[in-house]
Amino acid sequence: MEERTIQVNHCSTRKEKPKSDQLQFGRIFTDHMFVMDFTDPLGWHDARIVPYQPLTIDPSAMIFHYGQSVFEGLKAYLSPDGDAQLFRPEKNLQRLNQSNERLCIPQINEEFALGAIKKLVELEKDWIPGSEGTSLYIRPFIISTEPYLGVAPSRRYKFIVILSPVGAYYKEGINPVKIAVENKYVRAVSGGTGEAKTGGNYASSLKAQEMVAGSGYAQVLWLDGVERKYIEEVGSMNVFFKINGEVITPVLNGSILEGVTRNSVLQLLKHWEIPVTERKISMEELRQANKDGLLEEAFGTGTAAVISPIGQLTWNGQHIYINDGKTGEIAKRLYDTMTGIQYGMLEDPFNWIEKVKEKSNSVF
Amino acid sequence: MEERTIQVNHCSTRKEKPKSDQLQFGRIFTDHMFVMDFTDPLGWHDARIVPYQPLTIDPSAMIFHYGQSVFEGLKAYLSPDGDAQLFRPEKNLQRLNQSNERLCIPQINEEFALGAIKKLVELEKDWIPGSEGTSLYIRPFIISTEPYLGVAPSRRYKFIVILSPVGAYYKEGINPVKIAVENKYVRAVSGGTGEAKTGGNYASSLKAQEMVAGSGYAQVLWLDGVERKYIEEVGSMNVFFKINGEVITPVLNGSILEGVTRNSVLQLLKHWEIPVTERKISMEELRQANKDGLLEEAFGTGTAAVISPIGQLTWNGQHIYINDGKTGEIAKRLYDTMTGIQYGMLEDPFNWIEKVKEKSNSVF
Repeated sequence: MEERTIQVNHCSTRKEKPKSDQLQFGRIFTDHMFVMDFTDPLGWHDARIVPYQPLTIDPSAMIFHYGQSVFEGLKAYLSPDGDAQLFRPEKNLQRLNQSNERLCIPQINEEFALGAIKKLVELEKDWIPGSEGTSLYIRPFIISTEPYLGVAPSRRYKFIVILSPVGAYYKEGINPVKIAVENKYVRAVSGGTGEAKTGGNYASSLKAQEMVAGSGYAQVLWLDGVERKYIEEVGSMNVFFKINGEVITPVLNGSILEGVTRNSVLQLLKHWEIPVTERKISMEELRQANKDGLLEEAFGTGTAAVISPIGQLTWNGQHIYINDGKTGEIAKRLYDTMTGIQYGMLEDPFNWIEKVKEKSNSVF
Repeated sequence: MEERTIQVNHCSTRKEKPKSDQLQFGRIFTDHMFVMDFTDPLGWHDARIVPYQPLTIDPSAMIFHYGQSVFEGLKAYLSPDGDAQLFRPEKNLQRLNQSNERLCIPQINEEFALGAIKKLVELEKDWIPGSEGTSLYIRPFIISTEPYLGVAPSRRYKFIVILSPVGAYYKEGINPVKIAVENKYVRAVSGGTGEAKTGGNYASSLKAQEMVAGSGYAQVLWLDGVERKYIEEVGSMNVFFKINGEVITPVLNGSILEGVTRNSVLQLLKHWEIPVTERKISMEELRQANKDGLLEEAFGTGTAAVISPIGQLTWNGQHIYINDGKTGEIAKRLYDTMTGIQYGMLEDPFNWIEKVKEKSNSVF
């Protein structure tokens, strides 16, 4: 991809921005979006920022039939000095290319894509809400647009970035949730697409979620698709347990998505010299640890919630209560530190923050 | 769904039709398409036939992110008396609703949808090619269109039917293909979406297909995702083996798609009093049967090819040659009978054929 310029077509009228306290997740979008096309043999081309607008796509396009697509999710935060900043965006773009590889979608230039995201966020900086816990959600995604019903990789794609101002995940303080362990449905299996961020993984997860939502469970906990014993993820988050002083998270096995928050939590725990292990962990081990009084904390990690403490797990009708249904010490410390770094309130010892507007930004 | 009328908006100019001998699969579409919308709480509404045209969809629509979609594939054939006819279309619509159930998509009225398909095919009857082996491919599909990035079932959908004239699958006579047994990638697993016709299953299959295509293999043969021993499907077809006089096909286990052709083949074999069994069958059993000289035939079944004989299977570097690379007797008899019924050349003992224009059709 030799594309180096981004055409900007400004919208003529700006939408009204929502109030900070009325923000939801993913329902309102900003005034502009980034679009880039891929055709064979031209490659990625025609990078542009245009007014946010509907896509016009042939009904035979592959995205509507064979689900060849990938996406990412990250956020822009407003720092106390009024700067827009991103959290480890290069990790999201690396993962986007890993997902591309699995889904037979052509690679993107990660550096260029990061520049495009920064340019778009800078243009839409007024859309970043300022209240505590709010942010501007960034959704890069790639869809297959060749008008052809054959089952084969598309020869046309669109790479698009849209932005959505989102409210605080925890409006009334960080609170543990109830999780149902899923025995019937499986999210992903080794050899499948579980470690890629692709639409099909999410479509297949809807049914299990729907089945438990009525009983007051926030999410399901997914077990491995082979033995139905080992813990994989919780909802669309990675999951951690503290057992007898040691923090454990399922080891990446090909069917688990490698979260950027997961990776950051592992680094923080090591930095704090808290014992942490990536390994297989079964529901039976968890049940036994709880019985022995050794299961001290459980929490999910993801971009939306950052840290989501788990107060109860229900497995085959048995309830496992964790830390008296309260947020654990480590979950709290991780949440405070992660958000502190993300919002520029705390020191950034790992160089995780990427300012949207570099002081010596000469590219654009 | 109380919808009972279909508005028709005719196109002003008709496209030029391709010559029968230049037809490919799924690249050319007819002049019109059927569209129906779902919104909550209105349900399915606004059923209409309109000129074939691009869809205009918000970039935040769920189909672009979370792959919530289902589809079907069937064909319209021209009979010797010039009638357009369908092959067991009610089976496809039943399966569409089964897929809807798994994907949390609202049910459609199957009878109404069949009427809509017949009305559209009747309108586009001139598009059904007349040469041997050609047909009009019918693609009903449902996509989720709610503009929302939350991972939850969409509250808006479009049900669309598009039509594509397709050429003969076997241009130079029915010919056995080489198949690679897939050990690394998995198509689906019990508890997943394997028995639903949804985009994600096809997106996840692309990589394995791409890996073997360069070595002259037409498709991969998928093994089960748990033990990686048992045979599931071949490419996007069901698969049958004849061992020592008995025909065997993998039993439906939750991860295998129930093909309409598979179902019809089972009925035909029973009608002919040829021993046929649905059961688990492993690659090891197949290898041993071949070694013992008992593996007599192998073939895939699907709407596109009807019957696709397999002349060679390659598993862990070992080649299994079947019936000297020639089309087997049963495969040939099934192909001739199935296509004979589909094109109205043979008697239809099972009432599989549905005429597009009923003699006493008063609904439209």
